[in-house]
Amino acid sequence: MNRFWSKTVSDIKPYIPGEQPREKKYIKLNTNENPYPPSPKVLESIRNETSADVRLYPDPDAAALKGAIALFYQVDCNEVFVGNGSDEVLAFCFPAFFNPGDAVSFPDITYSFFPVYSQLFGVKYETVRLNDDFSIPFDDFPSGVRGILVPNPNAPTGLAVDTDKVEKLLKKFPDTLVIVDEAYVDFGACSSVPLINKYDNLLVVQTFSKSRCLAGLRVGFAIGNSGLIEALERVKNSFNSYTIDRIAQKAAEAAIEDKHYFYQTVKRIVNTREKTAQELERLGFTVIPSKANFLFVSHKDIAAEDLFVKLRQEGILVRHFRTSRIENWLRISIGTEDDMAVLIEKLKAMMV
Amino acid sequence: MNRFWSKTVSDIKPYIPGEQPREKKYIKLNTNENPYPPSPKVLESIRNETSADVRLYPDPDAAALKGAIALFYQVDCNEVFVGNGSDEVLAFCFPAFFNPGDAVSFPDITYSFFPVYSQLFGVKYETVRLNDDFSIPFDDFPSGVRGILVPNPNAPTGLAVDTDKVEKLLKKFPDTLVIVDEAYVDFGACSSVPLINKYDNLLVVQTFSKSRCLAGLRVGFAIGNSGLIEALERVKNSFNSYTIDRIAQKAAEAAIEDKHYFYQTVKRIVNTREKTAQELERLGFTVIPSKANFLFVSHKDIAAEDLFVKLRQEGILVRHFRTSRIENWLRISIGTEDDMAVLIEKLKAMMV
Repeated sequence: MNRFWSKTVSDIKPYIPGEQPREKKYIKLNTNENPYPPSPKVLESIRNETSADVRLYPDPDAAALKGAIALFYQVDCNEVFVGNGSDEVLAFCFPAFFNPGDAVSFPDITYSFFPVYSQLFGVKYETVRLNDDFSIPFDDFPSGVRGILVPNPNAPTGLAVDTDKVEKLLKKFPDTLVIVDEAYVDFGACSSVPLINKYDNLLVVQTFSKSRCLAGLRVGFAIGNSGLIEALERVKNSFNSYTIDRIAQKAAEAAIEDKHYFYQTVKRIVNTREKTAQELERLGFTVIPSKANFLFVSHKDIAAEDLFVKLRQEGILVRHFRTSRIENWLRISIGTEDDMAVLIEKLKAMMV
Repeated sequence: MNRFWSKTVSDIKPYIPGEQPREKKYIKLNTNENPYPPSPKVLESIRNETSADVRLYPDPDAAALKGAIALFYQVDCNEVFVGNGSDEVLAFCFPAFFNPGDAVSFPDITYSFFPVYSQLFGVKYETVRLNDDFSIPFDDFPSGVRGILVPNPNAPTGLAVDTDKVEKLLKKFPDTLVIVDEAYVDFGACSSVPLINKYDNLLVVQTFSKSRCLAGLRVGFAIGNSGLIEALERVKNSFNSYTIDRIAQKAAEAAIEDKHYFYQTVKRIVNTREKTAQELERLGFTVIPSKANFLFVSHKDIAAEDLFVKLRQEGILVRHFRTSRIENWLRISIGTEDDMAVLIEKLKAMMV
């Protein structure tokens, strides 16, 4: 640190993203990317946008992209906010809705960016302890907090909840903003988007990085009533007028329009997930029932960290969190059928 | 507003970017974009990056891009920070270096995002009043502030200062961070980058949006000593791990590597600027001597707002700020030779 650092930046523990190896030899099952390329229509739209016009600023409102998202989810355009990945959208939620010194609440085991955002924006947080089966104890969320963040499915567990649990929370705390992080919802969980018109305290956040195969282009979005969306717009326009570039806007628009490719890709990943889960159980793993594009697993005999190291040596990257209560678990992204066959084969060899 | 808005978001006056018309019929001289396409090598690099790999997250460190910038400016890679446009870089400076309640200082007439960032991050600001010729009164910056923001050239005036003025400021306030916003520096001003090793209180911010023809892809950067850069990295990694997408990283890398195209393009714009300035003076305009890719002008007989409206009717967009002291001025971006010929012709017709 040096004398020019702010107090916040001196104290904060930044989020550490999963490794992005620059040499391409690994089977990457560590950052929950989609193993399949985006729709051919997405690549075509990028090619069409590759022109002299990249000299011009993008549409600061990303109106066409918002329109495409609104159409897909059957909401109004002014109920959609778009940002540079759902990380930016979630980050903007803090200055938009929470005052420094306010408290928010989220599970103790969840997306590890939540406590970091809280620190960055001077917001306090109370965590609720997951049950021993990693389910979220919805009844334990405290009253009197300004916001509750619930991922559905949760990360890194992959466990999903029915929307009636979310709805119960919305009813119980009508003056608390409930932000449902649905980064992984498309892989088998139920979205809370249909509830936004019934509850003005609900904001749903999603991303193009997982089910829509566009992690490399950085697009996320939020859906909620227009008052909530306007708060996010105000923060964006006080931070960076143009957060999504011209090419990413067009690519995301094409991605959400190609419904057929989307459903097909999601289905393949879900099928691979179910098959892989069964095979891992056969190898002695405990596998949390997942509705995401990853599996959260623990082996009865071999420590997670050992498996992590050995798999890396074998050319497979998975994710291990050195976090209390989950030190002995691995998060394994669902790759292609071939990727997962190699994983199972390598694990089998380690079990001998 | 609604009851979920934070106090900050309720009070803030967001920045309003220049209009980006969706129909393409205007000659756009309103947002200081480059009138020329990026280097052919940039478009080629985008095409090469348009592959299935957009499913993968970008390099969160943007190491190759930082390396290319470092090489161009002859600094170390750890003296370079990159972000989603210089707007994001400037925004990150606030939580990185200033505590809520701290004060910063900048000119009263300058980039209108500075007061907005201050409000967003709870930082107070003291402005120094530009001299009547719009020059920055460097001796008037107050002591005891935590940061001073000086654009060079200043916007929207286009007036530049020699680096000895910046150096004097760095010496006078060794405990104040001086951020020099060099968004327009390549069009004829002197960069303060060579001073970063001599002064640990200097951070220089630049962008790919103007001289490097890439406004549409959102890349900006900061150069300063590694301690300052680390603070920005910590903020970025507490906000959004991947702020620059795969395609933008590659495009910016190609843009900074093609020095020949860069110098050639800048030279064309500077030549057009000088020619246009002379013609505007002949038409009765006062023209501030500009080292940027725009001219700040005022007419002796016709009000700026009238000219703005009339030019718009004639298919030419320029920028008019309804801001005290500059209500009667227009900021006109430098377009192609042809764009400026049309502008002069239309203005001549209005003068008859």
